[in-house]
Amino acid sequence: MKTIRVIDATLRDGMHAVSHQLTPEQMAQIAAGMDAAGVDTIEVGHGDGLGGSSLQYGFSRASDKEYLAAIAKAVKKAKIDVLLIPGIGTIEDLEAAMTYGVKTVRVATHVTEADVGAQHIEFAKKHGLEAIGFLMMSHMAPPEKVAEQAKLFESYGADAVYVTDSAGAMVPGEVKARITAVREAIKLPIGFHAHNNLGLAVGNTLAAIEAGASIVDGTVRGLGAGAGNTQLEVLVAVLKRLGYESGIDLYSIMDVGEQLVEPIMQRPQVISNAALAIGYAGAYGSFLLHAQRAAEKFGVDARDILIEMGRRKTVGGQEDLIIDVAIDLAKTKQS
Amino acid sequence: MKTIRVIDATLRDGMHAVSHQLTPEQMAQIAAGMDAAGVDTIEVGHGDGLGGSSLQYGFSRASDKEYLAAIAKAVKKAKIDVLLIPGIGTIEDLEAAMTYGVKTVRVATHVTEADVGAQHIEFAKKHGLEAIGFLMMSHMAPPEKVAEQAKLFESYGADAVYVTDSAGAMVPGEVKARITAVREAIKLPIGFHAHNNLGLAVGNTLAAIEAGASIVDGTVRGLGAGAGNTQLEVLVAVLKRLGYESGIDLYSIMDVGEQLVEPIMQRPQVISNAALAIGYAGAYGSFLLHAQRAAEKFGVDARDILIEMGRRKTVGGQEDLIIDVAIDLAKTKQS
Repeated sequence: MKTIRVIDATLRDGMHAVSHQLTPEQMAQIAAGMDAAGVDTIEVGHGDGLGGSSLQYGFSRASDKEYLAAIAKAVKKAKIDVLLIPGIGTIEDLEAAMTYGVKTVRVATHVTEADVGAQHIEFAKKHGLEAIGFLMMSHMAPPEKVAEQAKLFESYGADAVYVTDSAGAMVPGEVKARITAVREAIKLPIGFHAHNNLGLAVGNTLAAIEAGASIVDGTVRGLGAGAGNTQLEVLVAVLKRLGYESGIDLYSIMDVGEQLVEPIMQRPQVISNAALAIGYAGAYGSFLLHAQRAAEKFGVDARDILIEMGRRKTVGGQEDLIIDVAIDLAKTKQS
Repeated sequence: MKTIRVIDATLRDGMHAVSHQLTPEQMAQIAAGMDAAGVDTIEVGHGDGLGGSSLQYGFSRASDKEYLAAIAKAVKKAKIDVLLIPGIGTIEDLEAAMTYGVKTVRVATHVTEADVGAQHIEFAKKHGLEAIGFLMMSHMAPPEKVAEQAKLFESYGADAVYVTDSAGAMVPGEVKARITAVREAIKLPIGFHAHNNLGLAVGNTLAAIEAGASIVDGTVRGLGAGAGNTQLEVLVAVLKRLGYESGIDLYSIMDVGEQLVEPIMQRPQVISNAALAIGYAGAYGSFLLHAQRAAEKFGVDARDILIEMGRRKTVGGQEDLIIDVAIDLAKTKQS
């Protein structure tokens, strides 16, 4: 029986779906449930990782330290993991997190910018942490480019590299092509992180495993930005059906969903038109609100703006371009 | 560009999710929206098809005739389709439906019982209808058996044959194996109908197309029994991304979802524990309530009952066995 390692991101990526407002007590309770269910690794914190709590990314209910302190007490077996996006979080943030028993850090960069994570990986390895390179918006780069960036992470000393479909924009063939290219380029375990904007989170995760991924992400009830992530309890059931061992007890994780996660959800995790537009356009989730405002102002369709932003391969921080795109679309409409 | 025909089942399979309570006016309005969006075929009626409105299957708000009369006026281009499950609906029901401009009938049987649909297919063909064989619970039979039953439908004169994953229990490899076996056995177009209980409705639909299916089902917002069907607007987006032509305008069908379907939904279409249990067990959806009652009475887990019912390949009508299974499980627990 092949083993698949599952990293649970409910208490990190799922925070996007609750405006980062879980209390440390809620997190601790959910983490204890996951731990008892056999979850291998639990990622914790603001949706944008260490240092994410800010005016720009939204303030979380509590600080990184408060969350980590609560979780550290609640978890007996599972590894505690943090996400670190260089530019949002710092090495100092990681150093502080380490004092709470964090065992794993995922260093997340844009798919073409692994180099900005070099020192973070190196620092983590020097201090005995597991360090995972996490290539966000992987749909924006062709397989060979993703593989090249994975090799960079390997050269910094990473223990594993993730292909991350941040916008939920990939189809199974695209996932397979990227995982295969990375597998041929590096010797490390390969991970895959999905979003469900095109309804393909579970399907893409299976495609990734088929192509050689051995670490995959999920969130209980699919809690996450946009249409959410791969629904963990569903993934556990499917992996069992296919003969993979995740170490997670199916009934226990279903119970965590019903008893602990559902009560804290602000909205059902469905594929809304907005989430679908993001996935179809392959655009940054945070562009949505800006696009809707610009659409109204210039009398164009927000979906057309998002598609054009995706086509231009724009990344977080380039929100200013949305107005330009809206004006261009309005002109085209008139002529 | 390859063409994929999409049959919309929102106003038939989706009726399960609204306890068959749509009014003819609501149906007409939604059908008009779909028609304008370019939907090729619209299936209409009680969730269990012609004659489904009954004490056993639940009464629908209006009669088959009232629904069909309203739809016939609302639809300009799309083909109107009805589902006929021999034993629930009759040839007389079909004859009555034909007077409202029905162009297509899907004759639905258990995957191993195509023969009970022989006369219905023959009647439909004799009267100039398009007739599609619809093999329900296809996960319960191995690929060669599904292919054998598809050949039977072909021999009766069917225009196409569907592989139907009624319990949302299949994984992509199982779908491919069945579609491939059917493709090798018959010359007709092959259809695929998915449910999302394992989060694989879209992924399985793509697997079916890859294996040779050219007709696929969807429902707007995924409206349907259990975790629902393949979400149509998501499917349209994914097909566009992959270069398939469905004839459906993406923005228009998204708008139908937001403006016409969301307002009539009774609950969000998510993967609940109950839906997941059905998909994982490969059991009849209608077993769920019985299993939950028996579980409480005998102090066992409803999920174990469903899994055992699936393992025994029980079919609709065998609800009595649920008590036996519960008793067996309770005994095993004690010993």
